Amino acid sequence: MKIYMIPTPLGKSPQNTVIPEHVVSIISGLDLFFVENVHSARAFLQWIGSPIPDYKITLLPLSKSSSPETLHEYIRMVKPDRSAGILSEAGCPGVADPGGNLVAFAHRFRVQVVPLVGPSSILLALMASGLNGQEFAFKGYLPREGPDRKVAIQAMQNMVRSTTQTQIFMEAPQRNNALLSELVQVLDPSYQLCVASEISLANEWIRTMTVERWRKESLPDLSKKPVLFLLGR
Amino acid sequence: MKIYMIPTPLGKSPQNTVIPEHVVSIISGLDLFFVENVHSARAFLQWIGSPIPDYKITLLPLSKSSSPETLHEYIRMVKPDRSAGILSEAGCPGVADPGGNLVAFAHRFRVQVVPLVGPSSILLALMASGLNGQEFAFKGYLPREGPDRKVAIQAMQNMVRSTTQTQIFMEAPQRNNALLSELVQVLDPSYQLCVASEISLANEWIRTMTVERWRKESLPDLSKKPVLFLLGR
Repeated sequence: MKIYMIPTPLGKSPQNTVIPEHVVSIISGLDLFFVENVHSARAFLQWIGSPIPDYKITLLPLSKSSSPETLHEYIRMVKPDRSAGILSEAGCPGVADPGGNLVAFAHRFRVQVVPLVGPSSILLALMASGLNGQEFAFKGYLPREGPDRKVAIQAMQNMVRSTTQTQIFMEAPQRNNALLSELVQVLDPSYQLCVASEISLANEWIRTMTVERWRKESLPDLSKKPVLFLLGR
Repeated sequence: MKIYMIPTPLGKSPQNTVIPEHVVSIISGLDLFFVENVHSARAFLQWIGSPIPDYKITLLPLSKSSSPETLHEYIRMVKPDRSAGILSEAGCPGVADPGGNLVAFAHRFRVQVVPLVGPSSILLALMASGLNGQEFAFKGYLPREGPDRKVAIQAMQNMVRSTTQTQIFMEAPQRNNALLSELVQVLDPSYQLCVASEISLANEWIRTMTVERWRKESLPDLSKKPVLFLLGR
């Protein structure tokens, strides 16, 4: 009676380069999944080659707005002879993705939660950034509005200055270019800025430079790409 | 001409359950590694089944105190026809482990850095905790001394209160039990505390409860085990 936290690839790829064989074999034994998106979960199970026929697999929607009654019902479906998986659309469920609310219920009812290895853009970006990995914070999305956004950027810079904690954050893909321009303009030129784009995919592009150096280079086109930004010293 | 950031298992296990086949095949093509510990790196390469004979593989030590001259020399060894890997003792290099300093040099000399998928105790603990994964911070080791330690614990609790950012931290294995007792005593009883022990290993044990609930249960023996603590709401 377990709930497996199952990572999925960060984008489309014909080959599986990111999910360990052990995780594939666990998935192949499950017929119950709580998922961020039913359509992409079905595509993932097909891609991974689950041997259980589609009509025998139950996929139930899970979001941050799932009600406590729904979450309770989901937990009740997990039985001694029926484990389940949690799948987000891309990456690791529960980390910058739904899933945490159901896991919290699982702990309350003493259902064992097993995290499985797979790709996390946050972790991979941090590994490849060369920035401080002894202390770091993931801040999620920056505020959209100009003044709040400026305050948030300034607060991150102050945090780096006082603690050297690496700050990891993101933006909606269509606003990536605007954010990069703003960062390069407003940040202290001596700070290190890493841009990690399309991580683990064919066009992966990761670069760390001082803000001063970014100002001298032509900026990459990040429009509509999955990108993480990391600020450090 | 690439530097691969290569994760390794979080403990001994006969089977490989955590390293994707794709990563194994990349490792099998490398004969140059910069490593936290030469002995454990050699054991890892043997365990993973690298086809390159031991005497043809170069393992060079890498630590946070490696000099700039050493790091520069290491980068010069990476050539268009010779990529290299970075290995820490366990888990992901550059994340709560050495490697970041060499990666920073790689960026300076425009050597491509490729992060590979594998186990990170920090990420796996967060996934399985059910705590806020939209915002989180890894704080590393708590201060050893009593007063500084109290201040650090209080600061984390204040951070959770004001931002709901999950706080992830650790202690030297021989002091895990003392830390858990202290946390259960001093934290606000309504807060959620997750203890994640021996992640991805045979005796993995992960539990999230309110501090109030922890006070009523007999505490687990965490002595000498690799453990992460997570505080949230």
